[in-house]
Amino acid sequence: MSDGDSRSRAGRLAALVAEAELDAVLVGDLVRPGASGADAMANVRWLTGFSGTSGFAIVGEGHRDFITDFRYTERARSEVSGEFDRKTLEGRIVAELAKLLNGKVGFDEDSTSVASLRKLREAVSEDVSLIPATGFAEKLRRRKDASEIEAIAEASRLADEVFEWLAERGVVGRTEREVALAAEARMRELGSEPSFPAIVGAGENGALPHSEPGDREIACGELVVVDMGARVDGYCSDGTRTWATGEIEGEAREVYELVRRSQEASLKAIKAGVSGADADHVSRQPIAEAGRGELYGHGLGHGVGLEVHEAPRLGKSSEDVLQDGDVVTVEPGVYVPRHFGVRIEDLVVVEALGVRNLSSTSKELRIVG
Amino acid sequence: MSDGDSRSRAGRLAALVAEAELDAVLVGDLVRPGASGADAMANVRWLTGFSGTSGFAIVGEGHRDFITDFRYTERARSEVSGEFDRKTLEGRIVAELAKLLNGKVGFDEDSTSVASLRKLREAVSEDVSLIPATGFAEKLRRRKDASEIEAIAEASRLADEVFEWLAERGVVGRTEREVALAAEARMRELGSEPSFPAIVGAGENGALPHSEPGDREIACGELVVVDMGARVDGYCSDGTRTWATGEIEGEAREVYELVRRSQEASLKAIKAGVSGADADHVSRQPIAEAGRGELYGHGLGHGVGLEVHEAPRLGKSSEDVLQDGDVVTVEPGVYVPRHFGVRIEDLVVVEALGVRNLSSTSKELRIVG
Repeated sequence: MSDGDSRSRAGRLAALVAEAELDAVLVGDLVRPGASGADAMANVRWLTGFSGTSGFAIVGEGHRDFITDFRYTERARSEVSGEFDRKTLEGRIVAELAKLLNGKVGFDEDSTSVASLRKLREAVSEDVSLIPATGFAEKLRRRKDASEIEAIAEASRLADEVFEWLAERGVVGRTEREVALAAEARMRELGSEPSFPAIVGAGENGALPHSEPGDREIACGELVVVDMGARVDGYCSDGTRTWATGEIEGEAREVYELVRRSQEASLKAIKAGVSGADADHVSRQPIAEAGRGELYGHGLGHGVGLEVHEAPRLGKSSEDVLQDGDVVTVEPGVYVPRHFGVRIEDLVVVEALGVRNLSSTSKELRIVG
Repeated sequence: MSDGDSRSRAGRLAALVAEAELDAVLVGDLVRPGASGADAMANVRWLTGFSGTSGFAIVGEGHRDFITDFRYTERARSEVSGEFDRKTLEGRIVAELAKLLNGKVGFDEDSTSVASLRKLREAVSEDVSLIPATGFAEKLRRRKDASEIEAIAEASRLADEVFEWLAERGVVGRTEREVALAAEARMRELGSEPSFPAIVGAGENGALPHSEPGDREIACGELVVVDMGARVDGYCSDGTRTWATGEIEGEAREVYELVRRSQEASLKAIKAGVSGADADHVSRQPIAEAGRGELYGHGLGHGVGLEVHEAPRLGKSSEDVLQDGDVVTVEPGVYVPRHFGVRIEDLVVVEALGVRNLSSTSKELRIVG
């Protein structure tokens, strides 16, 4: 999956910065600076290796600065790539960042609050101009290298292990919430953590694609949607299986096989060069032909990496073209309101000739007690 | 704790809006709109009762709008106060919000990204001006009413139950991480969830106030700092105890008693009308007199509510004055680098004549096996 680019991540970012005729770009979370969640820190982590909740990088020609606060000085020493000049904040974040800036400096519009931009503008010296430069790191993060794919594959393997454990243990007679918490606890026992709160939707709740697991007890003879992911070295997995709690026939069985066919057709269609919109279209065809197109109300998939939702997007209005090294979900679904839902989701690496599937759990309809 | 104000929360917010000579204020997360975390949704939850991850309110003279997306239409119907006109988004969030705005509209600089403000400016009609109006809801949220205090007290009681459970179960021979995960799992079994990831710092790790629990095994005869909180109906608790794993003497024992004295002096000093800076000063005095002032490197406390850190702040540079109905932590600490740390934290309601302590776990040095 390597793109054969021997430059460091910071080197590749610096090249984008130069292309945009900027002197440097500021990378980090200026929304909740100092107390950022994992998603908000994804760019900094990717760029520098830093895994804490408070850190910023400044990258450009002659700039390789990394700044954190006293809590993380030690961690920065062990994690942050040596090409960075590592500093510890002595005062307020915005004021300290301002001191390190000069010339034309790009900032990310999505990860900067209006308040932080105002404070930064007030703090920088007169010769600094702050210019929107959004999505530079995200663009580079899209193509995963071998070590990133390894981490995602391991997260996916762990989640598959939890799917297997759940199925063997059984779900009937437990509430959705109990099953979801058990899955998350098992992930932690295995040394990982959930990449997002597990979703367990039984019967009619399966028809609400994002319902929170509740106190509904799982009964015999219904469909249960289980959607979860693990996290390894910061990298996420994301996968879904729909199980039956007893033999099912009729509409539910039919819809299950329909979604499975859609999912398999999508997997066959995806390779580098195919657009996200075309892949989505392939997944919709069998479902539309069966007269159920209206019941598939979301896109086919999304990129996964340090964030559980990142570029590219596979959907009707996506303008992305899939490329070698993308890691994406393939997850069609059909939701019959007030009755049941079916979603089947694999996580795959896009390659030149097809996909490498990171999910290994069977997609035959599984009867779980 | 009621302030005797019979107006609804929206009514009180509308009064602030009118005072600022605005027509309306936009409340909600315009940083990650549609996928907001609990902290980012705190204002909307407080104002409307809505507990989902995607919702906005517009409040002003003649304005009581609430907007969510299709995933949450049902939830909004059951949760959102009837004084709001409840709508479901039909298109993109920013475009739909823009349609509902007119006149001078306040937005929160801290919860709006530069990108969202730009898109909103592009989408509103010409007669709309968007004006920074930051912290209106936060200001009102500070004073907790009886039902809010009840939820926080219940969260604190639950966390105390977990402290007791942990202590009885023992910590020696387990890793910090195992103890932290066990505490969180226990909280979930009790029907709650952690308000933040539990902190467990043994021996020298206790000297790093925000270290993540790691693979260090807890040994006999050392100090262990345990900092955790639960969440009930969205409301957080936050509390810390430092335990000894065997009899301890000398410096560690001495520092424990010093922090305990500081914490008790602080509790006695706090009441409505005392400034956050003065309360902090009281906590520092015994520690400074013992020549350990340099080892107490953080503020005395912070407000707690729908967010685990909110107004007011108790610290050297705080400009807040404590008032009836504030709920705050009281948590002095002394950290001896590379040796050990001690922090003792209670959660209290500020009242006219003193505090009502929501933490009931003993502060005598407890020996935990």
